[in-house]
Amino acid sequence: MTRITLATFVVATFLSVTSFSQTSSTAIAEDFKPSSLNQPGQEYPQVNSQGYARFRINAPKADSVKVSLGLGGRGGTRLTKGADGFWTGTTEGPMDEGFHYYNVTVDGGKFNDPGAKNYYGSVRWESGIEIPAHDQEFYALKDVPHGHVQQILFPSKSTGTSRRAFVYTPPGYEKNQSTKYPVLYLQHGWGEDETAWSNQGHANLIMDNLIAEGKTKPFIIVMTYGMTNELKWGKLREFKIDPFQTVLTEELIPYVDANFRTLSNRDNRAMAGLSMGGMETKMITLNKPETFGYYGLLSGGLYNPDDLKDEPKPKLVFISCGSKERPEGVKKAVDDLKGAGYNAVSYVSEGTGHEFQTWRRSLHELAPLLFK
Amino acid sequence: MTRITLATFVVATFLSVTSFSQTSSTAIAEDFKPSSLNQPGQEYPQVNSQGYARFRINAPKADSVKVSLGLGGRGGTRLTKGADGFWTGTTEGPMDEGFHYYNVTVDGGKFNDPGAKNYYGSVRWESGIEIPAHDQEFYALKDVPHGHVQQILFPSKSTGTSRRAFVYTPPGYEKNQSTKYPVLYLQHGWGEDETAWSNQGHANLIMDNLIAEGKTKPFIIVMTYGMTNELKWGKLREFKIDPFQTVLTEELIPYVDANFRTLSNRDNRAMAGLSMGGMETKMITLNKPETFGYYGLLSGGLYNPDDLKDEPKPKLVFISCGSKERPEGVKKAVDDLKGAGYNAVSYVSEGTGHEFQTWRRSLHELAPLLFK
Repeated sequence: MTRITLATFVVATFLSVTSFSQTSSTAIAEDFKPSSLNQPGQEYPQVNSQGYARFRINAPKADSVKVSLGLGGRGGTRLTKGADGFWTGTTEGPMDEGFHYYNVTVDGGKFNDPGAKNYYGSVRWESGIEIPAHDQEFYALKDVPHGHVQQILFPSKSTGTSRRAFVYTPPGYEKNQSTKYPVLYLQHGWGEDETAWSNQGHANLIMDNLIAEGKTKPFIIVMTYGMTNELKWGKLREFKIDPFQTVLTEELIPYVDANFRTLSNRDNRAMAGLSMGGMETKMITLNKPETFGYYGLLSGGLYNPDDLKDEPKPKLVFISCGSKERPEGVKKAVDDLKGAGYNAVSYVSEGTGHEFQTWRRSLHELAPLLFK
Repeated sequence: MTRITLATFVVATFLSVTSFSQTSSTAIAEDFKPSSLNQPGQEYPQVNSQGYARFRINAPKADSVKVSLGLGGRGGTRLTKGADGFWTGTTEGPMDEGFHYYNVTVDGGKFNDPGAKNYYGSVRWESGIEIPAHDQEFYALKDVPHGHVQQILFPSKSTGTSRRAFVYTPPGYEKNQSTKYPVLYLQHGWGEDETAWSNQGHANLIMDNLIAEGKTKPFIIVMTYGMTNELKWGKLREFKIDPFQTVLTEELIPYVDANFRTLSNRDNRAMAGLSMGGMETKMITLNKPETFGYYGLLSGGLYNPDDLKDEPKPKLVFISCGSKERPEGVKKAVDDLKGAGYNAVSYVSEGTGHEFQTWRRSLHELAPLLFK
């Protein structure tokens, strides 16, 4: 089960960066603008109103330059060299809305786009591009009270290291000295790390905006690195949950409860994760049902009634994925759970696959359901 | 004055990435190890016990690959292609101890080293490499209580944006609910941003270690972006301090004092900065002497007694630089200040230039002198 799931996540992760919207027969609109994720002052990469991406890279003496984004199986988007030494190219079709990882192959070597900021995915810092989404307002930086995202270094005896996590505290946390908050432990996917949910996912902005609209109870989110071993392709199937479960439940949770004003009981503690982080969430919540009261799997597997039958009942099971993944499986699993008397909710992100837009939307749907 | 100073900083910034230790006539020790700043699982770049750096980059079809680090004026370190398609090369001499920015030119295009993590400098995300320093323990990640570094988004009416800053809170800040702390406002250099002092500078680890040794009073450090306008080469001389001074003194300081447990008066507020951040520190402290009680210029200009004569007396003036910069100027300025009755301290970092090792050491020297 675990092996299959892992393989699925990895394959999905790699397919995902090449996913397309339905191909468009209309002409390409020449209203390209710099991607919102570009480095300061950089004009490229650009995106247009239809979701096409255009790249422009300086490599005057190169023989071939291609971008991993665009045509996947057929080698991404091949750029063509101009008289000025810049290589340019546009994706063949519109990209799915939201965030995509990519890289650039220059004369056979893999590099990043010097115009784009970098995001940790696929076990490397990749270039990132943002295709404006019709619903991007829910994770936009707005003039509302903002929570803080802080890096903590917590002692880990089991690994003999100081390990890093990021902690989102909601607006007002510093001022409301008498208030205690529930906590969501939120995991990244394979090849990503503890930076993913705030950098790529905008988890903090999603919460700031939901809280400003009164749509969710303010709570703390803790994001840490979900692996305790070096992640390499070949080693992926050797993954064991035990070391990370120890770090999370015996080291991180006690540190957070000791250093932040938390409501430290099962009814005020949730765990959710995307992709491989969902697999970790399922394993750990089933191993430690007394620790977490709310479970969330985002493109990260399913719970069946049999998984839960010998467990204290979770207060909520949330299962989601993109419409380009396996929505029928998600819906059926939730129907089965409801049939067995569980409080289960499914969510399907329309028009997206195994990528961050699915997970941003999933967090936006999950947050208001937590800690009721 | 401002113009000259700015030009100096920029030139120095660019020279700095090519600075060498005295060239060594001994053989190169073949004890190369991966740089501590490599991406997970990456074997290259490597550094040896003498401070040489070795690079290895895959670009099988490239005609030329060179690294900006190593020979500066003569075009950095040229790599040579092996039968396996990997380009390798070693710096001609040992590098200065500490952190260096660099990039890789592949067939005429500027990219980053896929093996190294990225750091924002020179108005782009550059590759970073760490040459182990004899005194690296003072900024090492140790098994001591760790403070937290948190990202805040503060409202800025003057720029019409939510602006980002990072706030270091010392170990125990969350637990000691009744304790209030002094605050150091610490600025980055030209082409860097608010991430520099924690990413490249390890300001948080320097403080954690000093506090664990009882060598400094615990205090808060606030690091924000020191420019309010798009930074471009040609525009550099147009820099005006007023917009940033407004953001810092009328927007950020009030936000920090409202959201953190600070001692919000002159005697408990310091400002320091490196390179261009020193120039900003000098301008703002002289414009707002009632706001800051402690001044620090790290490779960032000098105060003369005349600068201060009409001002309320600062409690401390700290001026530092690397021995490869202009140590005589720093020493003379501090002697003059002492002669005029000021509490002034100079520090010269041995064997380093206009780079972060100078500034890590400067912070390590400055912190214990603050808020006495």
